[in-house]
Amino acid sequence: MIEFTSEDFEKMEHLYRINLINSSSGYKSANLIGTKSEDGISNVAVFSSVTHLGSNPALLGFFLRPTTVARNTYSNLKTTGKYTINHIHSDIIEDAHHTSAKYDSHISEFDATKLTEAYKDEFWAPFVKSAPLQMAMQIVEEHPIPANDTILVIGKIEKLYIQDTLLNDDGFVNLSKGNVATINGLDGYAIPELKTRLEYQRPKPEFVNSQK
Amino acid sequence: MIEFTSEDFEKMEHLYRINLINSSSGYKSANLIGTKSEDGISNVAVFSSVTHLGSNPALLGFFLRPTTVARNTYSNLKTTGKYTINHIHSDIIEDAHHTSAKYDSHISEFDATKLTEAYKDEFWAPFVKSAPLQMAMQIVEEHPIPANDTILVIGKIEKLYIQDTLLNDDGFVNLSKGNVATINGLDGYAIPELKTRLEYQRPKPEFVNSQK
Repeated sequence: MIEFTSEDFEKMEHLYRINLINSSSGYKSANLIGTKSEDGISNVAVFSSVTHLGSNPALLGFFLRPTTVARNTYSNLKTTGKYTINHIHSDIIEDAHHTSAKYDSHISEFDATKLTEAYKDEFWAPFVKSAPLQMAMQIVEEHPIPANDTILVIGKIEKLYIQDTLLNDDGFVNLSKGNVATINGLDGYAIPELKTRLEYQRPKPEFVNSQK
Repeated sequence: MIEFTSEDFEKMEHLYRINLINSSSGYKSANLIGTKSEDGISNVAVFSSVTHLGSNPALLGFFLRPTTVARNTYSNLKTTGKYTINHIHSDIIEDAHHTSAKYDSHISEFDATKLTEAYKDEFWAPFVKSAPLQMAMQIVEEHPIPANDTILVIGKIEKLYIQDTLLNDDGFVNLSKGNVATINGLDGYAIPELKTRLEYQRPKPEFVNSQK
């Protein structure tokens, strides 16, 4: 195996380091986060850090760095508290990735790409029309992360929209039926196919009630 | 599209709700976190919330709920500060998933499964031998999340081990060459194949220097 130490990371060329460390956590979620400013300018940006926090209440978190392209998303979040999370799928990968370009705040990425904004149920923030899973989100907590000056944003799912074909009888959402993407590193995209679902696990009998 | 509101979530049968909400964030990372108690009892448990936080310093975060099976992981983390993150791959999916069973703290999941523990460079916590990517981690911050009584654990990568075939010349780690898994919901596993790598994105010229 190839080995790197934290001292090696510090000496690396910038692009090599961000490729390496961004790939190291494993596969990442691939989402477009939609917001709209108080002035009515919509914004959409790709994020790969949306993470499930809990089901009751239904909470998701994501990390952002207010000094990067995420600054427009963050500014809209701060003023409105509302955002949408939309799953990236095979047909929109290129346009979704393009939202990582640093547009001025008066430009809507919906104008600069073929992504189409949609509004539902009078929710303030725009949804991405073709996404097979879309969520209306309300911020509930914000945690500054001193270790690297990022912010953990935690939101509650107010409304969840799912393409009919993805939903199983037991509530499982089969992401592969929507050709949902996953991200590898900074710029790698894959469209996984579900391989297996495994059962709820209990300890093997021979390891239960053994001597303490 | 099928629609659910937050009121619907509250009325749902427990299993339906956890299937639904766990699938909603998109694809998740599939990792085994290895720890060892001060008494020398090793522990390994599956996690699907490991997320990249930043590359300089190289930081990863994950969420845990100290009242679940993660309690042994958490207790070892608190006393030792050291853990390992190991990528789940196609050959060990069943054993990796089995570590979600609630074993007593005096039982090592390495004994209850075919997973093999490995020790390297005098690091305290055990690695999972066959994992194509393995990391030695040191806790740097811990953030309680009041919204649902979970904890965000942030750690620094002290050492990174990668199977030679996965590493590209530019630092990109091709997870699909290691048959690394991704998790859909609570119990769905997929082994993605890399589809494309996209370029660094800049704003389209026609949207630059336009009237503000």
